[in-house]
Amino acid sequence: MTHYKYRLMAPGPTPVPEKVLIKMAEPIIHHRTAAFEAIVAEVKENLKWLYQTKDDVLVFAASGTGAMEGCITNLLSKNDKALVVDGGKFGERWWKICKAYGIAHDVIKVEWGKAVDPRLIEEKLKSADYRAVYIQASETSTGVYHPVKEIAAIVKKYPNTALVVDAITALGVVNLPTDEWGLDCVVSGSQKALMLPPGLAFTSVSKKAWGLIEKSDIPKFYFDFKREKKAIDENTTAYTPAVSLIIGLNEVLRSMKAMGLEGIFKKHEQIARACREGLKGMGLKLYAPEAPSNAVTAVYSPEGMEAGKIVKGLRDQFNMTIAGGQDQAKGKIFRIGHLGHYDPMDIVSVLSAVEITLLKNGHKLELGKGVGAALQVLAS
Amino acid sequence: MTHYKYRLMAPGPTPVPEKVLIKMAEPIIHHRTAAFEAIVAEVKENLKWLYQTKDDVLVFAASGTGAMEGCITNLLSKNDKALVVDGGKFGERWWKICKAYGIAHDVIKVEWGKAVDPRLIEEKLKSADYRAVYIQASETSTGVYHPVKEIAAIVKKYPNTALVVDAITALGVVNLPTDEWGLDCVVSGSQKALMLPPGLAFTSVSKKAWGLIEKSDIPKFYFDFKREKKAIDENTTAYTPAVSLIIGLNEVLRSMKAMGLEGIFKKHEQIARACREGLKGMGLKLYAPEAPSNAVTAVYSPEGMEAGKIVKGLRDQFNMTIAGGQDQAKGKIFRIGHLGHYDPMDIVSVLSAVEITLLKNGHKLELGKGVGAALQVLAS
Repeated sequence: MTHYKYRLMAPGPTPVPEKVLIKMAEPIIHHRTAAFEAIVAEVKENLKWLYQTKDDVLVFAASGTGAMEGCITNLLSKNDKALVVDGGKFGERWWKICKAYGIAHDVIKVEWGKAVDPRLIEEKLKSADYRAVYIQASETSTGVYHPVKEIAAIVKKYPNTALVVDAITALGVVNLPTDEWGLDCVVSGSQKALMLPPGLAFTSVSKKAWGLIEKSDIPKFYFDFKREKKAIDENTTAYTPAVSLIIGLNEVLRSMKAMGLEGIFKKHEQIARACREGLKGMGLKLYAPEAPSNAVTAVYSPEGMEAGKIVKGLRDQFNMTIAGGQDQAKGKIFRIGHLGHYDPMDIVSVLSAVEITLLKNGHKLELGKGVGAALQVLAS
Repeated sequence: MTHYKYRLMAPGPTPVPEKVLIKMAEPIIHHRTAAFEAIVAEVKENLKWLYQTKDDVLVFAASGTGAMEGCITNLLSKNDKALVVDGGKFGERWWKICKAYGIAHDVIKVEWGKAVDPRLIEEKLKSADYRAVYIQASETSTGVYHPVKEIAAIVKKYPNTALVVDAITALGVVNLPTDEWGLDCVVSGSQKALMLPPGLAFTSVSKKAWGLIEKSDIPKFYFDFKREKKAIDENTTAYTPAVSLIIGLNEVLRSMKAMGLEGIFKKHEQIARACREGLKGMGLKLYAPEAPSNAVTAVYSPEGMEAGKIVKGLRDQFNMTIAGGQDQAKGKIFRIGHLGHYDPMDIVSVLSAVEITLLKNGHKLELGKGVGAALQVLAS
C-alpha cells in the first residue's frame, strides 16, 4: 500500500478542480428547461471567448474524436479530397477517418518528434484541389507543437479550402486566436485543458466552413453540424446533452475567464518550461526539442533504459500516472502531461519521482539537480 | 491571482482526504438511531486500536482544549496538586486551566526547543504529592517531542498519580502505546493526524485515572467523563455529537487500519526526516535538533531574516499556509506541519517554495539542494 497520494500527470484525462467536482455532484436537472438553457447560453458565450471567435462553437456529448469525425463528414463531399498532416498517432486518426468514409486524401508524413514544414502544405495546395487541410496543433503522441499560425496564413489564400485544427491538447494551453488566424474548425475535448472528465467534444465553425457544409453530401446523423447549430442558436443541443459535464464546463469557463487568456497561456508556458528544464537537468534528451508543446513533454529514456521502467516506477512507487511512448516511440520515450489543472508544484513532484526512479534504474545523477533546474524557471 | 494550488502545511488544521469529505457530505442522519449507534460502536473499537488500549476512549464535540480541561477537572480534586511540564504554548495551557479552576500546581519550565529531562519530573514527584502530571508528547509550538516513554516509567511508580499526555499532534504520528507504557489519559483532536476538520476531542482514560475521577469534587458538566463513559458504553454520547465528523472519523479510522500502525508511523518518520534534511540542506538550523517531533518541524529563519517574510512569501507567491513562531520564537522561526494527510511530494513542494523564498529574500543557496537532500531520504 503506497503512502503517496494519487497524481494524474498523463496528457489527458487531467485532474478536475474540486469546486468543479462539487458543482457536478449537484442533483441532475432536466435539459429541456429554462434553467439549463441559461447555462447553455452562458457556456456558448464563454466558449466563444476561449476560442477567440465570433463564429459558432458546437458542443457534442462525445470524445474529441467525434468532433474530428464531424469535421470530415460535414465539411467534405464524396468527390472532395482531403490533405492530412500526419506526425503522430493523432495525425493518423485524420486519414483513418477519411478511409472509413472512403474519402480521397493525401498524407504529409512528418518524422515523429518534428513539426511539419508549412512549405510542404503550400506545395501540396498548389498541386491539387483539396477541400480541407487537417492538422494537429499539439500532437499529443510526440509532444510537438505544429506551426498553426504559418499554416493558417497559407490555407487562407485558398477560398475553397478549409483548415481544420485538432486542438484537443492545445485549446486553453497556447494562444490560438480562431478568427484572427482564420482557423475554420478548431476541435477540442473536455478532458484536457478544460479540466473536466472526458465526455464533451467541441468544434468551432467558420463562415468558410459553413459554406462547405452547405454542399456536403456525406452521410451523418449524430455529428450533424447544421442540426447542432440550429439547436445551440436556441441555447440547447440537438440530442440529450451530458448535463453534469455542461454544468461543470460552465464552472470551468468562469474560472478561466477570471484568470484571463494571457494568465492561462503564461501559466502553461511556465510549467512546461520548468518540466523541460528539469528533465534536461537530469541529463535527459527531449523528444521534440525544436517545437515543444506546452501541453505535454515527451522525453527520451536514458540510453539502454526501457522507458516503460520509468512509467512503471512512477506508478508503483509514487502512485503517479504518466504516459509511455506509442508505436515507434514505445519503450524509447515517456510523456508528462501538464495541461489544465496543474501548478508548478505538480511539476516539481513528477520531476522528483523521475529523479529517484532514474537513479534506482542505474542512471547517474545528483538528486535535486533536475528539480533545481525547474526551480530556476519558477524563481525567474 | 496566483496559479498555485492551495496547500495547507500548518501543524493543524490539516487537509482532509477527498473520500472523507465526500462521506461527510452525505445527508445528515439522526444520532439517536440504530444506524448512528452502529457507527459509534465501530468508531469506539477503532479508536481503541489507534490508542493501543483496552480501556475507554471518550469522544467530545469540542476542540482538543476541551479534553485537556476535562483531564484536569475530572482527575483532580480541590485539594490536589498538579505537576505541569511547560516547554511551549501548549505546556502553558495546562497551568492556565489549573489557574482558572484555582488548582494548586507546580510548573517545570523547559527551555523552548528542548525536551524535558525526565529526571526533573522524578525529583518533583519525590518532593511532593502530585495527583497528576501533565505533559505534551509533541509540543506544537516548538516542534519538540518529549520523552513520553521515560516519563511514563517514572510516573507509573506512583499509584496515586496519573500521567496525562497531550498527544494532539502525536497520536497517529508516533508510537504511543497507551496501555503498554501506562499512559493514564491521552488527549487528541480531530484536525491533526486524524485528518478531519476541527471539532472533535478525544481522551483515553485508564483504570488508575477512573480511580481518581471517582473521588473528584471539582465542578464540571459538559466534560464529565463519567457521564460520557456511561453513554459510550451504550454506543452513544451524552450530548448531541458532531454527527458528520463522527461519520468522517469512521472513514478515517478504517483507512488508518488498512495502512496499519507501523505504516502510519513509518510514513510520518520518513516525511518528517525528509523535511528536516531538506531544510538543513538549505543551510538552515533546526529549532529542536535534539528532540524533533515527526508532526511539525520548527526551523530558524536565516540570520537577519524575519521569519514572517518566509511565511508571507509562501502565502503570497505559493498559496501555501505554514506557521510562524509564537511568543518568544516569533520572527525567529517558521514551522511546517506534516502530520496526517501528507505525502513526500507535499514536502518536496513546501521545500521548493521555501528555497525560492529564501533566495528572493537574499539567502544564498543553490536551488534544488534542499530538495535534493529530501530526495535522498525518499530514495533510501
